[in-house]
Amino acid sequence: MKFEVTILGSSSATPIYNRNPTSQVLNINERLYLVDCGEGTQQQMLRFDVRASRIDHIFISHLHGDHYLGLVGLLSSLHLNGRKKPLKLFGPPQLMEIIDLQFKYSETTLQYAIEFFPVDAARSQVIVVNEDVTVETIPLDHRIPCTGFLFREKKRLRKLLKDELERLQVPVEFFTSLKKGADYTDLEGKVYKNDILTIDSDTPKTYAYCSDTLFNEQYFGQINNADLLYHEATFLHNMVDRANETHHTTALQAAQIALKVNAKRLLIGHFSARYKTLDELLEEAQSVFPNTGLAIEGRTFVV
Amino acid sequence: MKFEVTILGSSSATPIYNRNPTSQVLNINERLYLVDCGEGTQQQMLRFDVRASRIDHIFISHLHGDHYLGLVGLLSSLHLNGRKKPLKLFGPPQLMEIIDLQFKYSETTLQYAIEFFPVDAARSQVIVVNEDVTVETIPLDHRIPCTGFLFREKKRLRKLLKDELERLQVPVEFFTSLKKGADYTDLEGKVYKNDILTIDSDTPKTYAYCSDTLFNEQYFGQINNADLLYHEATFLHNMVDRANETHHTTALQAAQIALKVNAKRLLIGHFSARYKTLDELLEEAQSVFPNTGLAIEGRTFVV
Repeated sequence: MKFEVTILGSSSATPIYNRNPTSQVLNINERLYLVDCGEGTQQQMLRFDVRASRIDHIFISHLHGDHYLGLVGLLSSLHLNGRKKPLKLFGPPQLMEIIDLQFKYSETTLQYAIEFFPVDAARSQVIVVNEDVTVETIPLDHRIPCTGFLFREKKRLRKLLKDELERLQVPVEFFTSLKKGADYTDLEGKVYKNDILTIDSDTPKTYAYCSDTLFNEQYFGQINNADLLYHEATFLHNMVDRANETHHTTALQAAQIALKVNAKRLLIGHFSARYKTLDELLEEAQSVFPNTGLAIEGRTFVV
Repeated sequence: MKFEVTILGSSSATPIYNRNPTSQVLNINERLYLVDCGEGTQQQMLRFDVRASRIDHIFISHLHGDHYLGLVGLLSSLHLNGRKKPLKLFGPPQLMEIIDLQFKYSETTLQYAIEFFPVDAARSQVIVVNEDVTVETIPLDHRIPCTGFLFREKKRLRKLLKDELERLQVPVEFFTSLKKGADYTDLEGKVYKNDILTIDSDTPKTYAYCSDTLFNEQYFGQINNADLLYHEATFLHNMVDRANETHHTTALQAAQIALKVNAKRLLIGHFSARYKTLDELLEEAQSVFPNTGLAIEGRTFVV
């Protein structure tokens, strides 16, 4: 099953040339999930050939502009481009008030429904459960209420061993129960154990998105063993005081977190505009956690 | 005196690859005036080397998202980049409510003052008068209240004829009154008429910005004889019904207006995303008004 993330924006508070504010799009089994939506996100989607019409879920971590100012434009463009199917939107309770006010004054009545789920940043909630994935919120420690999002792939059904089924001429109508783990009994009453006809599916993968937070152990337990951990790394560690003051993380701290929670791979982003190039941020993180990558715009990472 | 406009965005409602929503920046005697601020305007400024910190006046024509969704991000970046001097903002009365709500929830207190002037779209008002320019609003005919903006260069003082002043050894302390049109009397009581010591300054130029409007004679008188007329031209004329329905103008109509008001030059913009290339729009306008240009992003036009 496809499970990958494409970076649309990697900048913190102010954009700089070639770095847009935060946004990412996940492709999970060919459904798109948008995570944060900084100004210019819809332009970035055009640039990187991401079809906005395929997005059915949008998640907003918090109400600092660099994480949501592209949302009203995107919602409006979906409407103008003929969207009819509902859109699920998850974010701080006040987000809907901001959207409603702007559509009121532009006299816009969307042709599709926004199903809004206000997120409580004080506790972790499971906010999406479908056949592919569950999504839960990660309470973070920022200047205003802020949550990350943890995407857990659903455990898939067992995989059929096609050659063996063919050899034993197992009728197709038994395949579903076999996938679910049942044994197979043939017409003569002979029982075949499930594990000679199927194998276990792949271990479900998890993607943890931790935007805008102070280094704070409170959420480490929840992101344990993430296959891919995206963590903000706004500053180099020589600015740790500034990071603490503004409730952000340094590249070194992001790497320490990845190590501590036993992540398989770390992706750092949300870079301060003061860094024209990102090499130093990457080197600092890799000095602690070698398997680190940069959340560069346009790049896709497989979870 | 410098009087020029740089295009930052040229797209109508939805952006397309390489065309951002509407925004322009005027440089009038080295002061920058921003006109409309669609999503991504601050990124466009970075791209075209326009220093946002030099902007002291921002004008918003109306509250459709493609004309203002970049504003909160820009105001926020100015704050984060240390702006202290006040900023004058002109736009629909509800604009400030939209801005305030977003800064309330992001817990942002700007370090500089926004001096907000609510614009009444029902009548023309002079909203700026300074030593370089006067700006008046142009009531347009759109689906929601909308105004254009007319920038009239101030008449400059008369120009001194340096050679003549030197020959007659006119003392420097008379220069200011000469520029204002007074005659000069020398120590012996001899009177020199002003017009042998000075010449008239250049005729003041005007720039008319007409965003989002139905073809409607109501505003033609006000933009008469514009040196540079920017007019929206959302559609080709084969879509005039759609233009009427959505209160927009066709390229042909924009050219007819330029002809009718005796503009010296026409600039068309606000192109529908349906037009991948703009040649047909330009050709259509030029068939009626040859001196027409396209408001292409990054281009600068001298008024």
